[in-house]
Amino acid sequence: MTDFQKQIENLTRQNNELFSKDFLLTWEKNKKDLNYILELAQLLKDFRDNNISTKMFDSGLAVSIFRDQSTRTRFSFASAANLLGLEVQDMDESKSQIAHGETVRETANMISFLTDVIGIRDDIFLGEGNKYMREVGEALDDGFQQEVLPQRPGIVNLQCDMDHPTQSLADLLHLKNHFGSLENLKGKKIAMTWAYSPSYGKPLSVPQGIISLMTRFGMDVSLAYPEGYNLIPELEQQAASFAKQNNTKFEINNSMDEAFQDADIVYPKSWAPFSVMQQRTLLLQNKDAEGLKALEKSCLVQNANFTNWECDEEKMKLTKNGEALYMHCLPADITDVSCKQGEVSEKVFEKYRIDTYKEAGYKPYIIAAMMMSNRFDDPGETLGKLFEKDKKRVFL
Amino acid sequence: MTDFQKQIENLTRQNNELFSKDFLLTWEKNKKDLNYILELAQLLKDFRDNNISTKMFDSGLAVSIFRDQSTRTRFSFASAANLLGLEVQDMDESKSQIAHGETVRETANMISFLTDVIGIRDDIFLGEGNKYMREVGEALDDGFQQEVLPQRPGIVNLQCDMDHPTQSLADLLHLKNHFGSLENLKGKKIAMTWAYSPSYGKPLSVPQGIISLMTRFGMDVSLAYPEGYNLIPELEQQAASFAKQNNTKFEINNSMDEAFQDADIVYPKSWAPFSVMQQRTLLLQNKDAEGLKALEKSCLVQNANFTNWECDEEKMKLTKNGEALYMHCLPADITDVSCKQGEVSEKVFEKYRIDTYKEAGYKPYIIAAMMMSNRFDDPGETLGKLFEKDKKRVFL
Amino acid sequence: MTDFQKQIENLTRQNNELFSKDFLLTWEKNKKDLNYILELAQLLKDFRDNNISTKMFDSGLAVSIFRDQSTRTRFSFASAANLLGLEVQDMDESKSQIAHGETVRETANMISFLTDVIGIRDDIFLGEGNKYMREVGEALDDGFQQEVLPQRPGIVNLQCDMDHPTQSLADLLHLKNHFGSLENLKGKKIAMTWAYSPSYGKPLSVPQGIISLMTRFGMDVSLAYPEGYNLIPELEQQAASFAKQNNTKFEINNSMDEAFQDADIVYPKSWAPFSVMQQRTLLLQNKDAEGLKALEKSCLVQNANFTNWECDEEKMKLTKNGEALYMHCLPADITDVSCKQGEVSEKVFEKYRIDTYKEAGYKPYIIAAMMMSNRFDDPGETLGKLFEKDKKRVFL
Repeated sequence: MTDFQKQIENLTRQNNELFSKDFLLTWEKNKKDLNYILELAQLLKDFRDNNISTKMFDSGLAVSIFRDQSTRTRFSFASAANLLGLEVQDMDESKSQIAHGETVRETANMISFLTDVIGIRDDIFLGEGNKYMREVGEALDDGFQQEVLPQRPGIVNLQCDMDHPTQSLADLLHLKNHFGSLENLKGKKIAMTWAYSPSYGKPLSVPQGIISLMTRFGMDVSLAYPEGYNLIPELEQQAASFAKQNNTKFEINNSMDEAFQDADIVYPKSWAPFSVMQQRTLLLQNKDAEGLKALEKSCLVQNANFTNWECDEEKMKLTKNGEALYMHCLPADITDVSCKQGEVSEKVFEKYRIDTYKEAGYKPYIIAAMMMSNRFDDPGETLGKLFEKDKKRVFL
Repeated sequence: MTDFQKQIENLTRQNNELFSKDFLLTWEKNKKDLNYILELAQLLKDFRDNNISTKMFDSGLAVSIFRDQSTRTRFSFASAANLLGLEVQDMDESKSQIAHGETVRETANMISFLTDVIGIRDDIFLGEGNKYMREVGEALDDGFQQEVLPQRPGIVNLQCDMDHPTQSLADLLHLKNHFGSLENLKGKKIAMTWAYSPSYGKPLSVPQGIISLMTRFGMDVSLAYPEGYNLIPELEQQAASFAKQNNTKFEINNSMDEAFQDADIVYPKSWAPFSVMQQRTLLLQNKDAEGLKALEKSCLVQNANFTNWECDEEKMKLTKNGEALYMHCLPADITDVSCKQGEVSEKVFEKYRIDTYKEAGYKPYIIAAMMMSNRFDDPGETLGKLFEKDKKRVFL
Repeated sequence: MTDFQKQIENLTRQNNELFSKDFLLTWEKNKKDLNYILELAQLLKDFRDNNISTKMFDSGLAVSIFRDQSTRTRFSFASAANLLGLEVQDMDESKSQIAHGETVRETANMISFLTDVIGIRDDIFLGEGNKYMREVGEALDDGFQQEVLPQRPGIVNLQCDMDHPTQSLADLLHLKNHFGSLENLKGKKIAMTWAYSPSYGKPLSVPQGIISLMTRFGMDVSLAYPEGYNLIPELEQQAASFAKQNNTKFEINNSMDEAFQDADIVYPKSWAPFSVMQQRTLLLQNKDAEGLKALEKSCLVQNANFTNWECDEEKMKLTKNGEALYMHCLPADITDVSCKQGEVSEKVFEKYRIDTYKEAGYKPYIIAAMMMSNRFDDPGETLGKLFEKDKKRVFL
């Protein structure tokens, strides 16, 4: 257990620059801060695995706002909140449209009187999701400064139109543990590629999150998609400049094969082209049901040209020793399993199925680390005290 | 902190007459009891603000029954329950009609085996909401006496057709703190007035709650509405007799200007006339969709005659030094913000926005005080022990 | 309180064979194990009634999956989880069809990273409900063995197509307490009979659960229904062989009167014939709305031949001294109360109403006992420590 205490001390020596700051985009955070999240998440997991309670709130709410359906992230958020002692209260916005201005300002305060954390998922409207989170944040700043709120709840981005930080950091922690250390990731090639799916309109936040994060953590990123299936242009450019700053490589090409060539890691996943997401956002805002149907139809026809963008055994043979680590944020569209023709073949998925489950298993701890680093000035010190206290999670 | 202990001791010296009694209408309670709620609510808030845990239940449910949509009250109830250590379990009645008799008797017991508190909102049907709460109460009495239930859960009225006690007492606590003391409220004039709204069918419970409560706490109440927009007649008469008993004034007139004249506090808010609510109740009970549409249409036409019942800067100039405190239970219909023409102008609302947020912020503590005074024989003693124990809400 | 300690010691002396095993069917468990559940449930109730906290989880989720509407069981599950310290997180499957294979395997893991217990209700499709629970169980085994999950959540069957173990064991605990001991149940006659209801399609799990359990606990079971209204044939045969093994009687006849003759306990309750449930399952799976309507119509016509299968005072006179204990899982269809013509007359129901409420009141504790025996190797030892600790549930 002295190893345990060493990790806690190691955390205590670092400054928690995340205190009282919302977690909205990984690229707004220093690498040091992101590393802090990884270490804190791992520690919280180690506490849990060793049956030591990390209940640090005796009461308090964790509010979740889901503007899109979700099972996995909902459970991850609930698990994280519960792990720290917060109770989830869901804010059901199902009936309301994107609300702005007065409504957001007021509602943000009304749900926050005894709230420590707010988790928001808003990934449907391009240009809206992240903006909405910032609006909520400003409303909370206002409420806290004017003494409406006794605390300023921290905001955790549970997926927006730009980034999916709880996913990409869970992915990074998975890679760190899989390859042994962050150091070991240096020079590794990751292929973030589009893949065929029989559905359309999947958000861009995962590939955008991956290219933005992995270029900063020593990896060479190869982004591949069929012509016209690009991500938000500014974020592609940003990834390129991250690569430059961090002496890694970032390339975009239109061939899955090229991207897979000698890759250490592959992340094949479907998404809708940026231009489609733009049109879709407009149609959704105008509640143009006909237009949406027509767009969906034309997109599915377009997608059907690229059914060969499937991660199968042939493609995997192209990767480093034919043994690249396959990643997915789940659920994957698996050929002959969840659909007739999908993102990945059954054989490839089955080989890496447990790996993808483990990948997902980091998310509750990443979210808990974001919550804790936001609300605690010195998480290391608090964990040290909890370690001393040694209250059992399960009282045996 | 000795001030803290003084307040606790002060509470301990008073008898808790609210123990084991449902909180359904403020006018069923003595002024002493209402004052007790205010002091207890304030203490719970002070504990929270000083990071001292008020978790007094180690387990137990707080059941909420919402027969009308709600965000604010839902969060207030959840916050209050969580503050004391109870877990909210929602009883979803969305699909059921107003149920009476056997169903209520049985269901009330079935949801209460391990339940300490039940919060009920039922404000749609005139003559039904409060009646329903009493039916639930009788069923719980029966279940407790016959040893079906190991405890008799306390009922908190979260808004009914007659009263909205958690709102009116939060309003009173806001006024107490704003003006410095209950003593200072003596002789203050409060204008509870109708205001124009582009919607219809808003419940009567807020104005009824305000005129019933403020006449008893030293304030002169001026109730104003367009002809025909009266409240439940018996409750208007009751307010008049409360004024008599308490040496305050109660007047009804049909002019917003008159009501605002020299007022210290204004509370302009839309509601549907009593006679409309009667018709609407019948139509809802008969599920007469056509009739409801026709009623809505005619009411909106009728309302449109009174768009000048708006709280704007002109009207505010009529008040005491042009500086009356503006109150609202939120959300307000704000002209040019949430609607084209509403209850209050943007300028007036913006000036008092933060005040209305603070007003709302008392509600979780009022609800928690109602819960605690119902379940604890001597809340002062319990708070004293919690103060000694000094467990931190957030473990730093 | 020494009596208390004796019961705890008594429990400690027994082996907990239920540790780490799902609770899916009573007939998969030894009588000793079922008795263990009864004793543990009673102890948890005694702790609660004596204001001693049984919070043994400091954090952790209890996931509920309801594939059918439910109020009672939902509250029982929530109460049980809360009593032990787990937070309920509902998995909303309302929009998904019966999912199998990959989806179940993945979802079961995704909701279980920090989950200790999963409660499942799936009673609509014959041949599917229990199968689904086993599929979830296998997925969890896989996830636990492959180190995806830090614990293997225990599964509690909250009602399936075959059995309703939380109901039948709550019923048995009710009988044990009503008659003084399990010993006293020996030789008692219980009439499990069909009864008329104006609805159709009620599941078979309650009568199947009762005949399977009571034949093993010393009771003579008389199962009665109109011709053609049989249960799953294999389960009727199983009850007969249980009777043989346990020296009790099991008979099937087509007369309510015969079944009631000299009965000590009567359990009259409506259900749909096995053959109808088979047809209904097919139609539901094929989403054949027309077919379902036609089936319902023909069944209601068929049922109408048996409106005299009502438990009224006349029928009750046939029972032992006219004083048999009436049981029901609630809600009952009460003639002239909840319907025009139903399972039981108002007079009979009213006489036994409180008994049926008490019967229902055991369910939260039975569920809690199932949770605890699954997650704790030696519940007696843990309860002993909790008794020593003597933390109050309500901090007075």
